[in-house]
Amino acid sequence: MENTTRLLLPDVAEALRRDPASVSELTEELHPADMADLAAALEDDLALTFVDNLPVTDAARMAESLDLGKRVTLFSHFFSKSPEKAADVAETMAPDERADLISGLEEDLRAALLARMAQPEAREVRQLLSFPEGTAGALMTTQFVALKAEQTVAAAIDDVRRSASEMETIYDAYAVDPNGTLLGVVSLRDLVVAKADRRISEIMVPNVISIEADQDQEEVARLIAKYDLFALPIVDRSYQILGIVTVDDVVDVIKEEAAEDVQRLGAVEPLEDAYFQTRFIEFVKKRAPWLIILFCAGFLTTSAMRAIETRFEHLRPLLWFVPLIIASGGNAGSQSASLMIRALAVGEVKPSDYLRVIGREVLMGLALGMILCLFGAGRAAAWGETRTLPVMAAVCGTIVAVVTFGAMIGSGLPLLLRRLGLDPAVSSTPFIASLSDVIGLLIYLNVAAMFML
Amino acid sequence: MENTTRLLLPDVAEALRRDPASVSELTEELHPADMADLAAALEDDLALTFVDNLPVTDAARMAESLDLGKRVTLFSHFFSKSPEKAADVAETMAPDERADLISGLEEDLRAALLARMAQPEAREVRQLLSFPEGTAGALMTTQFVALKAEQTVAAAIDDVRRSASEMETIYDAYAVDPNGTLLGVVSLRDLVVAKADRRISEIMVPNVISIEADQDQEEVARLIAKYDLFALPIVDRSYQILGIVTVDDVVDVIKEEAAEDVQRLGAVEPLEDAYFQTRFIEFVKKRAPWLIILFCAGFLTTSAMRAIETRFEHLRPLLWFVPLIIASGGNAGSQSASLMIRALAVGEVKPSDYLRVIGREVLMGLALGMILCLFGAGRAAAWGETRTLPVMAAVCGTIVAVVTFGAMIGSGLPLLLRRLGLDPAVSSTPFIASLSDVIGLLIYLNVAAMFML
Repeated sequence: MENTTRLLLPDVAEALRRDPASVSELTEELHPADMADLAAALEDDLALTFVDNLPVTDAARMAESLDLGKRVTLFSHFFSKSPEKAADVAETMAPDERADLISGLEEDLRAALLARMAQPEAREVRQLLSFPEGTAGALMTTQFVALKAEQTVAAAIDDVRRSASEMETIYDAYAVDPNGTLLGVVSLRDLVVAKADRRISEIMVPNVISIEADQDQEEVARLIAKYDLFALPIVDRSYQILGIVTVDDVVDVIKEEAAEDVQRLGAVEPLEDAYFQTRFIEFVKKRAPWLIILFCAGFLTTSAMRAIETRFEHLRPLLWFVPLIIASGGNAGSQSASLMIRALAVGEVKPSDYLRVIGREVLMGLALGMILCLFGAGRAAAWGETRTLPVMAAVCGTIVAVVTFGAMIGSGLPLLLRRLGLDPAVSSTPFIASLSDVIGLLIYLNVAAMFML
Repeated sequence: MENTTRLLLPDVAEALRRDPASVSELTEELHPADMADLAAALEDDLALTFVDNLPVTDAARMAESLDLGKRVTLFSHFFSKSPEKAADVAETMAPDERADLISGLEEDLRAALLARMAQPEAREVRQLLSFPEGTAGALMTTQFVALKAEQTVAAAIDDVRRSASEMETIYDAYAVDPNGTLLGVVSLRDLVVAKADRRISEIMVPNVISIEADQDQEEVARLIAKYDLFALPIVDRSYQILGIVTVDDVVDVIKEEAAEDVQRLGAVEPLEDAYFQTRFIEFVKKRAPWLIILFCAGFLTTSAMRAIETRFEHLRPLLWFVPLIIASGGNAGSQSASLMIRALAVGEVKPSDYLRVIGREVLMGLALGMILCLFGAGRAAAWGETRTLPVMAAVCGTIVAVVTFGAMIGSGLPLLLRRLGLDPAVSSTPFIASLSDVIGLLIYLNVAAMFML
């Protein structure tokens, strides 16, 4: 929250308690995003009074700026209290933000709201909701400027001017034929610069960068970022334009995808809501399954430890190095995995590069393992019990092997997951560490056996 | 790279080998970002021939789209081969992209290039380079539309039309007084919709969202994302407008910051270049220091293991559970850390929330620890040697304590780092795992001692 908004908060809360109708005087100068900050910071019942006392347009703009979780909660209460006004607010919202809101509502609330909304808006919502979450179609808005190819620039500017207030953006307009097939794109910049009597077909850019509605939202983000676009048109299979995705929505997608990556990397299923908005039991559900899976996979380490302990009864100082050795494999693996997950996310590396990547990481693991092995030898030399050739050889040899192996699985697993069509970030750091614990112990057992013979 | 560009690559390479001057015919329809893909995919000498044979404007647009690392390398060779044309290309580039390029050049090359460039452009570069990397000033471009408050809308549209070709964006224009002080913002949308004889002062939005040049680029990204801006004006302390940052540059910042988070989380110092562009030795430098630090910190585990092994000589099956137990602390800690790092990055949690966060995470750790403890007891019950009350009690008690402790440091450390003004992502997953290894072993030693007495 901006500091100026924070300073306003007590006054707004006070006004809502004493004279709710007066609150819009306090907030009319605020940006909708700041109003949303206020609504999020107010107690639930005051936030409800707040939205109920704003003019419909302000309430709609504010709702568009609210976090999705908060938006759904607040709107559910709002609709129960003032169904008429809530439906008006929903109708006034941008189609994409409205669809996001409605998709989050409970089944019966959703039906009741759609029944109260005007026909065209309700139909639009149903159409947008028909696209699965995470696709280009689910991200788009249906408000865009469509022009005819044979129009003059002057007529087009008139069209743009008339429709400006309803449109998400007027900075890119799309030339279409009578069937709605996308013919070209014209920026408002080009319209303003062009002579008034030229035809749209003469100034439009024909090969429009566009994407089909069922493509992944990450691909939308990639194209908008790569080509520095303000808006990307979404088309169906017959190249009819269905809507557009604007750059500001893509900023949210990029942030969301980055958050998911970081959470998956830490072995947490991505959260839907903000940290403090997420309930305790929800956290347990997102965290416990991974912890249990990793824990049960770790059962193998107890068997390996038992084998080592039994086999080398005469040389128990070997056991002292177990946590150190297995951790170094996990650490090297985490490094490789995080490098690879990022490189895959931004498209620097493709699954088909696997030979080149794994070759490189194996060499890297060897180099890093040999560096660590010097430190390991130093540690072993510090104690009388471990300053023996067999122990030092077993420790050093295992470190090199474990670090190399860690780098190999750390880089290979994300590539494999991507190839299987899964999110590479599922190969979380804890997952790689656990895998490398098991393998590390098996390597230790075998290397030690080699030197003890 | 898009598939169409990939298909074109062999033809372009062939043309560059046989008849370099003909290459621009092949590529003239391409978007600059696709030309940049071609240049990045070509061998170094062919890429040089390519840029040298493009028209100056195409070469400039292409250079703006190249990765910074590639841009600097290619341009260094280009300037050595054709200094005159290279200086022309640099002059034609957008000021912000040009400054990024020049800041990457070797000292002597930079001086030689600036000497060849036109005075105003060279001065502009020096001004932009005076802002430290990572600040708003270093991100901005100095090309923006400035209007006078007393101008009419018609005159303003004429101004915009005339300057359109040089400007990064004409969609937001800024009203300034004769000293350059920022008075208001007018979107091209507002200009197009407004009556021709109105004054700019009547239609501008006065309270402009802006930021001072020495602020962090993350704050720039936050404001642009929050307020859905196309461009954010950068001002000095006296509120004179220095430049603007556009949303497409912010998309890059957000991606860059997310990449840094993921790499730090994996205990790798952030890379400057793409994965395959980074040299082997560079990787060793980015990875070895963290591995060595973590390894030496892990020396403490060898001492703890020695103490456990010596102390419980009569009950060595206790040792079999060591890797399992310490891993569960690390895993829970990684989860908490990744949740916290994300929540801090998007501003959901502030360092001042530490009591609330740590209280919540401790409860979470207790709940998760008790779940895992059931599985741990099951594992211990499976072997005759470990199906004893002391072993099972020591294993279960330690798991609960270690998981709780892991969640506590996993959440507390990022908060502490942020409070100290450091990047919370430095508390990487491997770092937390290593810390929890050491503490886990000490807890195990003490809990076991308690039950063995």
